[in-house]
Amino acid sequence: MMREYALTILQRCNELALISQHQDYIDRRYLTNEHRASNEKVALWMRQANMKTWQDEAGNLWGSYKSSIPNAPTFVLGSHLDTVPNSGKYDGILGVLLPLSLIEYYQQHNIELPFNLDVVGFADEEGTRFGTTLLGSRAVAGTWQDKWASLRDSDGIELAQAMRMFGLDINRVHNASRGNEQLLGFMEVHIEQGPVLESQAMPVGIVSGIAGAKRFAIKVKGHAGHAGTVPMSLRQDAMTGAAEIILAIEKLAIEHGVVATVGQIASRTNAVNVISGEVELSLDIRSMDDVLRETCVTAIEQELNLIVARRALSLEIKLTHEAGATACDPIMMDELALAFEQNHMRAFSLSSGAGHDAMAMVDACPMSMLFVRCDKGISHHPSESVTLQDVNVALQITKSFMDIKSNGLSTAQVA
Amino acid sequence: MMREYALTILQRCNELALISQHQDYIDRRYLTNEHRASNEKVALWMRQANMKTWQDEAGNLWGSYKSSIPNAPTFVLGSHLDTVPNSGKYDGILGVLLPLSLIEYYQQHNIELPFNLDVVGFADEEGTRFGTTLLGSRAVAGTWQDKWASLRDSDGIELAQAMRMFGLDINRVHNASRGNEQLLGFMEVHIEQGPVLESQAMPVGIVSGIAGAKRFAIKVKGHAGHAGTVPMSLRQDAMTGAAEIILAIEKLAIEHGVVATVGQIASRTNAVNVISGEVELSLDIRSMDDVLRETCVTAIEQELNLIVARRALSLEIKLTHEAGATACDPIMMDELALAFEQNHMRAFSLSSGAGHDAMAMVDACPMSMLFVRCDKGISHHPSESVTLQDVNVALQITKSFMDIKSNGLSTAQVA
Repeated sequence: MMREYALTILQRCNELALISQHQDYIDRRYLTNEHRASNEKVALWMRQANMKTWQDEAGNLWGSYKSSIPNAPTFVLGSHLDTVPNSGKYDGILGVLLPLSLIEYYQQHNIELPFNLDVVGFADEEGTRFGTTLLGSRAVAGTWQDKWASLRDSDGIELAQAMRMFGLDINRVHNASRGNEQLLGFMEVHIEQGPVLESQAMPVGIVSGIAGAKRFAIKVKGHAGHAGTVPMSLRQDAMTGAAEIILAIEKLAIEHGVVATVGQIASRTNAVNVISGEVELSLDIRSMDDVLRETCVTAIEQELNLIVARRALSLEIKLTHEAGATACDPIMMDELALAFEQNHMRAFSLSSGAGHDAMAMVDACPMSMLFVRCDKGISHHPSESVTLQDVNVALQITKSFMDIKSNGLSTAQVA
Repeated sequence: MMREYALTILQRCNELALISQHQDYIDRRYLTNEHRASNEKVALWMRQANMKTWQDEAGNLWGSYKSSIPNAPTFVLGSHLDTVPNSGKYDGILGVLLPLSLIEYYQQHNIELPFNLDVVGFADEEGTRFGTTLLGSRAVAGTWQDKWASLRDSDGIELAQAMRMFGLDINRVHNASRGNEQLLGFMEVHIEQGPVLESQAMPVGIVSGIAGAKRFAIKVKGHAGHAGTVPMSLRQDAMTGAAEIILAIEKLAIEHGVVATVGQIASRTNAVNVISGEVELSLDIRSMDDVLRETCVTAIEQELNLIVARRALSLEIKLTHEAGATACDPIMMDELALAFEQNHMRAFSLSSGAGHDAMAMVDACPMSMLFVRCDKGISHHPSESVTLQDVNVALQITKSFMDIKSNGLSTAQVA
């Protein structure tokens, strides 16, 4: 029934992918000509669906499908339209074009809602240009920070200036906030960017929350030496110490049910014939459960100190980043679960290890997310892929969810 | 008795350290003005000890303390005068200046030997300028390779041209060979460059041989992924695989009694929030025992394949360097052991993990080495250090060794 709409969504993802600041791959950053062009393209589609459109003071694109009920409240669906360099076609984009197609369906079937349904295309989620993520959604949530005015891109252009060049006035950016409105809620459809749905053979999943994260810079210091002349028993090898640390982190993460990653490594001298005198590692550790994550961090710190003591090495652990977990709204999670049931699917929920606009929107209204299975969990890469079937399921679930929201609201208004 | 000679050796090490192509640290490379200056300085000291001196066609400096016996054979003592950048004062140098002082002692005490005693200061052991080591000693051993003519330094100057600029003719370099002479043997005094003597509280040690080495480039391939979204159970993390490999190599090296080192590591993407998709490691594995080293290499290869199979990773192992072990002459090892006994010291032998000129000289004559304890095993660094006491012991042992050689030769001639 809605398959043709799902097809339109994918076709439009392809079309938007052509708007790129790089000829070889997709790259669409905040406050660029391509940002403007994609906003204009999506706004055109929105207006064709009888939506009222506008660009807010932060450069976010909005389309509103108005309810005829006077002073009706507003529900918001959406995600972001910016991309990382060499990105795929769906990360963010899908969560803007899917609700747009749902509204086309409403419009073509003369379906009216008891609330205004606004679709937002956030202007900057990835943070690729200015190094700070969620600029668009934070402006909407009312958590924009004035100090961001002096953030610079790689060409040295300040955010304030870039906004001016784009036609925006940073002094008016606070007007983009919808934090003071009585928004019913925000729901974001997004590709999973991980392999869980695929491994569970589920096309979509209900997000329970967005994991909090801590990041650390770990330095292991030993004693450099000649690879040929220092016997194994007399070594203070920072590399073997680092190896033991990496495996301990993996083991403790599994035991605690969190994810922990050592993604970066650097060794000094880093020569084939020199025993490493110093190794630097990064640690990224995430969990939906802040207490669990802290317990694991403490266990890791204890274990690492034992390892370096045993190996006569020394250790520095420095916290470089910290963000608490953000739970999704339990009422909307229940409503999404009901939508699954109505579509004869078992409700399946999973947490998000990656950050999303929904994380910022929680400061404005209750938020929820629906994840869509993506091939092999790959994202931020041209091979990012979703199937027509899965997009169709996501569209159906979103429609059912909106129906449940409508019924709930109508009932509430009647009661 | 010989302490004043030991003091002279150290004073001269300090003096030679002033001849450097860099003002901040010691750096004395092949075919530079500093090479010429150090040759001239040492030649002057040699002539003051009544030695006949010459520079050979490869730029090696020679001094000969002639025997009055007609057609006497020749024994060679020596090491190298070149250094790595930011080097210490003793690596190589000590093995040239120590025999020079011994000859000063002979000369001042009117001691004559039944053989000519030649002292050599090899011109290039470190290979820092042209990337190939042992150029000086290989010329003397008769194993100079003509293809080296086109080796280039970092300024693009070819070895042939550099020799010309220095005043040497590469077409005559084969004349530097002493491989066709009946040399009695070669003995090299050298700092240990490792911590074994220090850990055994021995001032000096008899080298049993120079370890053979194999080097490998190891590539571990996994699957890059988002540090937040891929559960631990679904990861193909090249970093944790590499960590397990590093520890397996360490364990197997200890079990086999060889030394093995992972000194280099590089991860891709190498970002804090990306699970590593590929890690490259270097492996350097050495032993005096070629069979033991091969057995350990085989065990490592088997274990690494098990590790990657268990982790759903893949593996490439590429041999990048190979050199067999070089044993020291057993007769000279016995003579050195006798010299230890005559000096009321227990004979202690150890193998060399690093390469030395003696390794090249084995192609010309029997070779042996005497290691001198150095502080914390540090070499190739300004903090490289030896004590006056240890240099004095090394000088005594060398003198006793020459006495034993002399007596042996006299006896042989009488018999």
